[in-house]
Amino acid sequence: MKKQLSNSKSTDVVVVGSIAFDTLETPFGKISKALGGSASYFSLSAGNFCKPHVVGIVGSDFPDTDFTILKKGNADTGSIEKAAGKTFHWQGKYHFDLNTRDTIKTELGVFANFKPVLNVNLKNAEYIFLGNIHPSLQLSVLKQIKKPKLVGLDTMNLWIETALPDLKKVISLIDIFIINDSEARQLSKEHNIYKAAKIILKMMGHNKNSVLVIKRGEYGLLLFKKTEVFHLPGLPIEDVIDPTGAGDSFAGGFFGYLALKRNANTQTLRKACLYGTAMASLCVENFGTKKLQNVNKNKIESRIKLLQKLVKI
Amino acid sequence: MKKQLSNSKSTDVVVVGSIAFDTLETPFGKISKALGGSASYFSLSAGNFCKPHVVGIVGSDFPDTDFTILKKGNADTGSIEKAAGKTFHWQGKYHFDLNTRDTIKTELGVFANFKPVLNVNLKNAEYIFLGNIHPSLQLSVLKQIKKPKLVGLDTMNLWIETALPDLKKVISLIDIFIINDSEARQLSKEHNIYKAAKIILKMMGHNKNSVLVIKRGEYGLLLFKKTEVFHLPGLPIEDVIDPTGAGDSFAGGFFGYLALKRNANTQTLRKACLYGTAMASLCVENFGTKKLQNVNKNKIESRIKLLQKLVKI
Repeated sequence: MKKQLSNSKSTDVVVVGSIAFDTLETPFGKISKALGGSASYFSLSAGNFCKPHVVGIVGSDFPDTDFTILKKGNADTGSIEKAAGKTFHWQGKYHFDLNTRDTIKTELGVFANFKPVLNVNLKNAEYIFLGNIHPSLQLSVLKQIKKPKLVGLDTMNLWIETALPDLKKVISLIDIFIINDSEARQLSKEHNIYKAAKIILKMMGHNKNSVLVIKRGEYGLLLFKKTEVFHLPGLPIEDVIDPTGAGDSFAGGFFGYLALKRNANTQTLRKACLYGTAMASLCVENFGTKKLQNVNKNKIESRIKLLQKLVKI
Repeated sequence: MKKQLSNSKSTDVVVVGSIAFDTLETPFGKISKALGGSASYFSLSAGNFCKPHVVGIVGSDFPDTDFTILKKGNADTGSIEKAAGKTFHWQGKYHFDLNTRDTIKTELGVFANFKPVLNVNLKNAEYIFLGNIHPSLQLSVLKQIKKPKLVGLDTMNLWIETALPDLKKVISLIDIFIINDSEARQLSKEHNIYKAAKIILKMMGHNKNSVLVIKRGEYGLLLFKKTEVFHLPGLPIEDVIDPTGAGDSFAGGFFGYLALKRNANTQTLRKACLYGTAMASLCVENFGTKKLQNVNKNKIESRIKLLQKLVKI
């Protein structure tokens, strides 16, 4: 097991999401059929802070080497279903500025028939992260959890456009919602990001403990609760190689840290933003999950120090 | 004289820039021939921290009421030349998102023949701010200063496109350079903002005391020195009414605070960013210079507290 940031017994975190092959090209090179997907990135990042239990599906073409990558990253892969057929395959190409990308091909494969089923142990987990998949699948996972203590959620523009009722239902049931700024604007139908945040917090039930994290790419993030707002910038990175998985890596570091600390108070949430940002900054410095596979405590902590120095007044 | 943030004798700051009439429309209303221009906004903002001596030119149509606004804002208007002809008049319309605007008309009037001449007192000033005007005018002011201690500079895309040799000359002679991110990218021919900063610091002579401030609109700013970088977000503002003058107000608060403290060390620079950001946030909450005319110490300090709370980890 990977050396973690804490020596206490790891908190169990259930994460559901996609496990995929990514074939992609950036201005700096390309990779073919590399391990990808929201659950993979989340797990490789969160594994530095907690014990991720990955719920997902792969095809019969999914190699043992990719299972090994996940396991080395501290994940329990026992709830990854291996089905007859092909693993979800995404193919894309990033533009020169790395802020936009074209999807060349999306082959759902076995993912098209994914019906997440949790085993008895996972049903008793307290920390759940609903990675970016169809909201109806997120709902079906959430329904299986007996006593959720902290539930996090990620989503994307596609579900805002095609599955809004289901998405709104999930949003009303979770504690922590992580989205990017364009999605926040789209979901709230409000351009001003502070007004947008208020509208989304309302969708979450406007509980005083609801947490909304709006990611703004290289500009960092804003964290909102009913009565507070926090800002953290991105890390100064001169060489972004491949932005794939940055959001999932953020979520893994952020949610993993909350699980490690077993609370979500103001101080822990702000520190969690640091850890999420550090993980995302590491992720983008190499292709696919390469850098995440070689992260250690020292590398993470030195990013945290950089961030703290960057914002110290 | 306005009640300032410090009770010690005000530091003299010479500011050269435009003094204009602004006729503009935003989605929230319009104003006609209101006091505007880079030197006016800078001075109304900086006047809370120092004694601005405005060097500029206006036409015979410039009303006493506008002189009074500047004087009430703590400015010395004795070096504003009143020439036969019309005052510089800018007319524009902001788009719905307030991030872009169309210039409808620019009438230079007497500004076309502006030749800044400093009196004996101003030639001995130590703190100089070269507001956004043609770099050859900025150079001519700088040449008249005998012993500059701290020189600040603002510019715009127009001069990068049409007066690059003059602009590069000024850049090589100043201590503090304030520009926005798109200008930084344009000037450095580099998209990555951290790489762009390095290139621009090199243009400044790469002195270890050179300071580059890159403004990023609602995302805040980055401050660069040779061996350090600092980030500060913008303030959460739900109702931006008119963004005109935000950059000049930032510069006024930032540079005015440095003049007040009479140094530009790391700690003072970071605090100056807070004050600049506070002044810019106040500026945009009403049309033209309206809000700046009614700013006081308490309003400024409460913004500083908000900012500190926003970034506290």
